[in-house]
Amino acid sequence: MQNLKNCQGLAPVFLIRSQSSRISKSIIPSLSVWDGHLSSRWRSTGGHGRQKYFSDRVPKFRFALAGLLAGTGAVLAYRHHQGKVEWAASSAQLPVTQTSALPVYTLEDVTKHCSLDSGVWVTYKGEVYDITEFVAMHPGGDKILLAAGGALEPYWALYAVHEQDHVLEILSEYKIGVLNPEGLKKQESANTSDPYSAEPTRHPALQINSLKPFNAEPPASILSDNYITPSVIFFKRNHLPVPRVDPETYRLEIEGLPGGVASLTLSELKSCFPKHTITATLQCAGNRRSEMNTVKQVKGLNWGIAAISNATWSGARLRDVLLHYGFGPEVAAKAQHVQFEGLDRDVTGTAYGASIPLNKAVSEEGDVLLAYEMNGEDLPPDHGYPVRVVVPGIVGARNVKWLGKIVVSEEESKSHWQQNDYKGFSPGTDWDTVDFKSAPAIQELPIQSAITHPAEGTSVDSSDREVTVKGYAWSGGGREVVRVDVSIDGGTTWHVAELRTGDKGQHPAPSPPPGKAWAWKLWEIDIPIPHRARELEIVCKAVDSSYNMQPDTVAPIWNLRGVLSNAWHRVKVKVNEDLKGEK
Amino acid sequence: MQNLKNCQGLAPVFLIRSQSSRISKSIIPSLSVWDGHLSSRWRSTGGHGRQKYFSDRVPKFRFALAGLLAGTGAVLAYRHHQGKVEWAASSAQLPVTQTSALPVYTLEDVTKHCSLDSGVWVTYKGEVYDITEFVAMHPGGDKILLAAGGALEPYWALYAVHEQDHVLEILSEYKIGVLNPEGLKKQESANTSDPYSAEPTRHPALQINSLKPFNAEPPASILSDNYITPSVIFFKRNHLPVPRVDPETYRLEIEGLPGGVASLTLSELKSCFPKHTITATLQCAGNRRSEMNTVKQVKGLNWGIAAISNATWSGARLRDVLLHYGFGPEVAAKAQHVQFEGLDRDVTGTAYGASIPLNKAVSEEGDVLLAYEMNGEDLPPDHGYPVRVVVPGIVGARNVKWLGKIVVSEEESKSHWQQNDYKGFSPGTDWDTVDFKSAPAIQELPIQSAITHPAEGTSVDSSDREVTVKGYAWSGGGREVVRVDVSIDGGTTWHVAELRTGDKGQHPAPSPPPGKAWAWKLWEIDIPIPHRARELEIVCKAVDSSYNMQPDTVAPIWNLRGVLSNAWHRVKVKVNEDLKGEK
Repeated sequence: MQNLKNCQGLAPVFLIRSQSSRISKSIIPSLSVWDGHLSSRWRSTGGHGRQKYFSDRVPKFRFALAGLLAGTGAVLAYRHHQGKVEWAASSAQLPVTQTSALPVYTLEDVTKHCSLDSGVWVTYKGEVYDITEFVAMHPGGDKILLAAGGALEPYWALYAVHEQDHVLEILSEYKIGVLNPEGLKKQESANTSDPYSAEPTRHPALQINSLKPFNAEPPASILSDNYITPSVIFFKRNHLPVPRVDPETYRLEIEGLPGGVASLTLSELKSCFPKHTITATLQCAGNRRSEMNTVKQVKGLNWGIAAISNATWSGARLRDVLLHYGFGPEVAAKAQHVQFEGLDRDVTGTAYGASIPLNKAVSEEGDVLLAYEMNGEDLPPDHGYPVRVVVPGIVGARNVKWLGKIVVSEEESKSHWQQNDYKGFSPGTDWDTVDFKSAPAIQELPIQSAITHPAEGTSVDSSDREVTVKGYAWSGGGREVVRVDVSIDGGTTWHVAELRTGDKGQHPAPSPPPGKAWAWKLWEIDIPIPHRARELEIVCKAVDSSYNMQPDTVAPIWNLRGVLSNAWHRVKVKVNEDLKGEK
Repeated sequence: MQNLKNCQGLAPVFLIRSQSSRISKSIIPSLSVWDGHLSSRWRSTGGHGRQKYFSDRVPKFRFALAGLLAGTGAVLAYRHHQGKVEWAASSAQLPVTQTSALPVYTLEDVTKHCSLDSGVWVTYKGEVYDITEFVAMHPGGDKILLAAGGALEPYWALYAVHEQDHVLEILSEYKIGVLNPEGLKKQESANTSDPYSAEPTRHPALQINSLKPFNAEPPASILSDNYITPSVIFFKRNHLPVPRVDPETYRLEIEGLPGGVASLTLSELKSCFPKHTITATLQCAGNRRSEMNTVKQVKGLNWGIAAISNATWSGARLRDVLLHYGFGPEVAAKAQHVQFEGLDRDVTGTAYGASIPLNKAVSEEGDVLLAYEMNGEDLPPDHGYPVRVVVPGIVGARNVKWLGKIVVSEEESKSHWQQNDYKGFSPGTDWDTVDFKSAPAIQELPIQSAITHPAEGTSVDSSDREVTVKGYAWSGGGREVVRVDVSIDGGTTWHVAELRTGDKGQHPAPSPPPGKAWAWKLWEIDIPIPHRARELEIVCKAVDSSYNMQPDTVAPIWNLRGVLSNAWHRVKVKVNEDLKGEK
């Protein structure tokens, strides 16, 4: 085994490419990585309750999503609420925060109240609140229902706007009791009986597609609230159980370069190679698979539209590491691929594996990282702690987590996932006729976009005159999204949405160089509601810098694995009649 | 002005990348560039007739398109014909080549006979033939009708199969007379009264979209007959009159690099930089614009599906030239674009201009050439003699012809064509609302494919059981075409076509490295004709290595300039009843 030598002497050889770092610093949210922290505490204590965790940490959260409060409607709603509170307090001659002699509830009592029909109860610091009446006044809309029947803390942690005295004041108005000690304990010890008990604690907002291995996506309604997705709600796509990796004994092996097998410790990786930061969107090949299932059943997790997220990633450049270990023209003359092997293994001991083309791995433009940080913190366990590959512009499946080995090779990875899984086929190909050798392994992904607001089946009021439509758009291969077209009449007429490369009120990131647009764009548009419309069929389609467009419909791109689902995204909403206008 | 120094000493510094050259040598057709030759002779004589030109040169044509004769049907047709000829000869007791006492015709007589209804007459070496009866027996099918009413030579020159004694023997059977001297002279002097008389002579098969400037495409029916498009029928897209450039006084100026303005002669360009060869497809941004016109009128030439062609290009790498003249990190730190200026100018003296991103121009992977050869010969005048830029994977408009100047710059070209022309917009954008600054200049083009056979409105026989569908597919940015799906039921069910990277019977080109698939693929498939089908709606759609797909329909990608028209291509054909089956 060859160890890294002359580490100090090496440093000046490498150039730190600071452009991306500059971008990322301005958009890293101050609260972004908790599940790494969470799970490391969890491991050290042998079990760590959510309730206690959130109680400890909520005051430290510093967010910047003040935009939620910026709309006139929200301000009016709060004013209305405040009037109500003051009236109630003066008429009852009681302080509004009075808490004495309140009933004690079980956790079951709370979880039963999880909808507007049953009433909406939530807990906060061990106390129970019935917020049913407040839901309609909530400036963030019905997102508040995500917390219905459970704890408020994890949701408030996502939106800094709640960290204000008057929010607690409002909440106190709805207090109806306290959680009994058993309920509190249960909330804290959730998950400990699970056979996957070594897995990290996850954010309760995640919509779980599979528990073992863990696969989950955030609700679409909150996905586009942050330009940089907080790590806790960044979609999770695990193929195998999450391995526990001791950073002290961790070694990254590198094969296929002159001099035999090399081995690198975590601290060597961090200290001997320049730290490079990029903002990059990862997307699962199966994002939006559920739409393909509506055409004809496919094999795979039934992902909605949120198996895609955006983060900043920091680490050593793969190019620098390979060059250090002797990569050069004589290797390039033979090798064509760089294989990655994870430390996650199945019961037979087979590790997760994937590979990427050599030129992506070694080119200056490729920006491939051996990342040890996500959103400015250590990688969370679900995202590959301590080291993962981040291959910007390339399908999530090649961004191997818990990276154990790199092999420079003449061949692609022989893994199931490279050879017989993540590939696209014609709609006419079925499981009887498929020849996996006939299609290339998915690398760059095609142009994609989806609508995150409004949600399918919801309503808008015609009195609002306009409907606000929001979503995300991204393309693989570093191709920048240059335009998003939105229609509310099913694709007959089109409007051009406004694109964002940062959170509202923040400076947008500077335009990336051609071919290096690794991060998504968020988009938004207000479209006038046509007179007498009773239903809107909202459609979006994006265009990338190569002027690639999304296909119109799902059926002609249907494929047996349900990957590459990037047809126009369509959402139908009802238009409520303009009752005010008729008065 | 700085001139190239130490030319001999420089040579060993550059590596010749021979992979592409190896490919190209095997597929360069032996007859590929005539219009260069044609026009140079034309210039020297002050006018050179087509008829004389073809008479002189036909015997020298050496083609390899023997595949046209390979089918059993073709062989049978010829046998049938031969039997008929022998019978006629024996019964008439006359030699089949007898030519005495034949009438004299005018050119007008010939041109009137240009269809099966009027009779099909052609001329060959000043003699007139009525080939009406032969059309049905022609092994190349009704392509023979392209020559109807005119000279055969230019068409025979495209297909080497005609260069056989028995073909002339067959033709002689149909001789009906000779052209009168005026007709011959007229054929020879066509074009001399044209105000664009300095323009090169063009192949008569070209379908002209505009004469001044000259813009033309080959008939779709012959486009996919050659993997390497013969230069004479390679689509022509000129923005301005073709400049006459004297190779002796030609100078290429290079600005924006340390040391001021450099100047390079043609012989320096050829001798001081390694010659590099690539096979690359060029496509006009307006290819298939005519389909957008069926949705709503757009501005631009009404291109069919053949404003795309494939050729081999040889020249110096732009990267090598820029590095030689001092390009380095300090230039890269400021500059972002490489501008090109043509020697073609409008009446105000404004030259054609365009630019490409700097990283495409200088990267090893970019393969940008300062090309002086096309298909193994000097560039033809219509394609930029003596030097053009070939930017593989990038829209034709940036492949500046008759290259006069290169400027490394912080800015894009200020030319009309870069700033206010070749850009894509939303279908909702019209000439009243368009803001050209809001869209990026087209560089890489999106995935494209089209059906070259059968043609719209033609018929197939149900007795044939199968319909053969052929076409081309290509994507920009070096993205390889990985699959073409074909449907004959309007897109309900799909079949996977066979792809080719060479002519039939030739070794296919080796797979290009990822991101360097500059050349198109030809495709073909035989699909069973459904029982009782009366019409087929044939559709094709291609997929590239980033799994980008073509959009389903034209209207949602309609744009005011009619560029980027890459929806599924659709062709309707009738199915003739199975009369044989009913006997």
